[in-house]
Amino acid sequence: MAVYTDITDDELAKLLADFDLGEAVSFKGIAEGVSNSNFLLETDQGRFILTVYESRTRQEELPFFLGLMRWLAEHGYPCATPMADRGGEALKRVRGKPCAIVSFLPGMSVRRPSVARCREAGVGLAGLHLAAEGFPLSRVNDLGQAAWSGMFAPLHAAAEALKPGLAQVIEGDLTRFDAAWPKGLPGGVIHADFFPDNVFFHGAEFAGAIDFYFACNDAFAYDVAIALNAWCFELDGSFNITAARAMVAGYESVRPLSPAERSALPILAHGAAMRFFLTRLQDWGATPADALVKPHDPLEYERKLAVHRAAPDLVLFGASA
Amino acid sequence: MAVYTDITDDELAKLLADFDLGEAVSFKGIAEGVSNSNFLLETDQGRFILTVYESRTRQEELPFFLGLMRWLAEHGYPCATPMADRGGEALKRVRGKPCAIVSFLPGMSVRRPSVARCREAGVGLAGLHLAAEGFPLSRVNDLGQAAWSGMFAPLHAAAEALKPGLAQVIEGDLTRFDAAWPKGLPGGVIHADFFPDNVFFHGAEFAGAIDFYFACNDAFAYDVAIALNAWCFELDGSFNITAARAMVAGYESVRPLSPAERSALPILAHGAAMRFFLTRLQDWGATPADALVKPHDPLEYERKLAVHRAAPDLVLFGASA
Repeated sequence: MAVYTDITDDELAKLLADFDLGEAVSFKGIAEGVSNSNFLLETDQGRFILTVYESRTRQEELPFFLGLMRWLAEHGYPCATPMADRGGEALKRVRGKPCAIVSFLPGMSVRRPSVARCREAGVGLAGLHLAAEGFPLSRVNDLGQAAWSGMFAPLHAAAEALKPGLAQVIEGDLTRFDAAWPKGLPGGVIHADFFPDNVFFHGAEFAGAIDFYFACNDAFAYDVAIALNAWCFELDGSFNITAARAMVAGYESVRPLSPAERSALPILAHGAAMRFFLTRLQDWGATPADALVKPHDPLEYERKLAVHRAAPDLVLFGASA
Repeated sequence: MAVYTDITDDELAKLLADFDLGEAVSFKGIAEGVSNSNFLLETDQGRFILTVYESRTRQEELPFFLGLMRWLAEHGYPCATPMADRGGEALKRVRGKPCAIVSFLPGMSVRRPSVARCREAGVGLAGLHLAAEGFPLSRVNDLGQAAWSGMFAPLHAAAEALKPGLAQVIEGDLTRFDAAWPKGLPGGVIHADFFPDNVFFHGAEFAGAIDFYFACNDAFAYDVAIALNAWCFELDGSFNITAARAMVAGYESVRPLSPAERSALPILAHGAAMRFFLTRLQDWGATPADALVKPHDPLEYERKLAVHRAAPDLVLFGASA
């Protein structure tokens, strides 16, 4: 959570001159998002978020992300809408970096979601899957199952440093995924990072989602699996079956899962834990000691991996109630 | 610029339950302020800033700062107003730390102030000095001239590391201040940190000041001197006499300086440069390599010291036009 790029009042005025959004009356860097710099911008016409894309976000993929956000907003899904300048362009540049101005989405994220909030999050995730239907662009999930063995190859020593013997256990998981990863499940555009800090509520109700910068095409049920891992584990590492059942029920109230999707949830959740374990392990080693952002602890997802490995029916039990 | 303390939705709801400010509908950490954590809070009744005071702000002084802000707001000065809870208390606690909710002050700070903005800033500073008149509390300036020799004593090696020979030059300045520091100038509550990032504009006009956490009792002209150093130096280190003249003229359009104040400006500006040089030198050595906040470069103020040392009539020339 940091602001990496400093935007002066002059640079902001120059950027806004291309838009019909009025003049800035307030501008504050906000501590939101890990990869990009975000600013809360108020003009005499409303409130917006200015996102400056840092090197970690690949520029050639920005039209997919911004186009998706616009598509979702146009199809009634509550998310920030990219603002187009007078020439119709949403992807702009400031201080030599790509940037976009999006509408401000009000709402509160929750830190420790209740069972009721997990249900609402499920509703919101299914709504996203339906709203994205027909979006004409697509993007390969470059952090999907096919990528994991390659991601782990240079990380054996890091895994062993984390926990002796872990590398071999992870290799065992990867071998299993190679053999048994489900194919042909219903799919489309998924959020792929539907964590509590990316989901807003208004009171008890789902109010919208933010941070679409991992969105890609993959199985819908894999997105559910990512969310189950992110929302339904307790601080002590135990999996909250009641919360998982509520999340799946909320999801199915909007988009019912097929039997194949439901029975795939355990391995999808195990794999989803692998995906976040691997990127956290990458970041853990690569983050310099003086970095502005503290990397997430890979051990959190190592523990989730262990839960799914030891009791693969847990998620299924949650889903099949 | 960082958020040091993480406030959960539950902690926020518990805090807001003591107030009549409605329920939170949006809450974002903002990258503003160096010493404390700040959050933009929107409720169904309006927008506020929640400040969580970190260890650097002394708790026993918070009633002075919060009382001053309330006093200034009540006397028509544009600044954030502390919100009192149902029991009349503005100083609250969250996550074991003192905190306060203040009204949101709209406005834009400027990075590279124009001459016209320097004039407006002078208007705003004089307005603060007048509005604070009658405020019943007082606070010694613990970073004032009397403190500088003691602050520098443990920093000789740090000064030499910055620039060989510097310690002796600084000692020469300090000896001069001991002998010639003006006494008996008109005084009262000063802001003491009236830098461009603490001053808001609405279009071309002064719109208010923030960050009163260095406010104290001292000579008004010393506050002007701090602002001259902060606003009127160019990036190349030269002192912009036109900007200084405009700032003093703006100040005097609201509160004329006496002849004694005007002739004291050169040594006050030299001393004000010393004050910021010394705290930056302290921070420079004391900041761990992995800190979230990069310390300000003490060399910036070493160069300002050198300008005032070499040409003490510069500021006077600006002021006496």
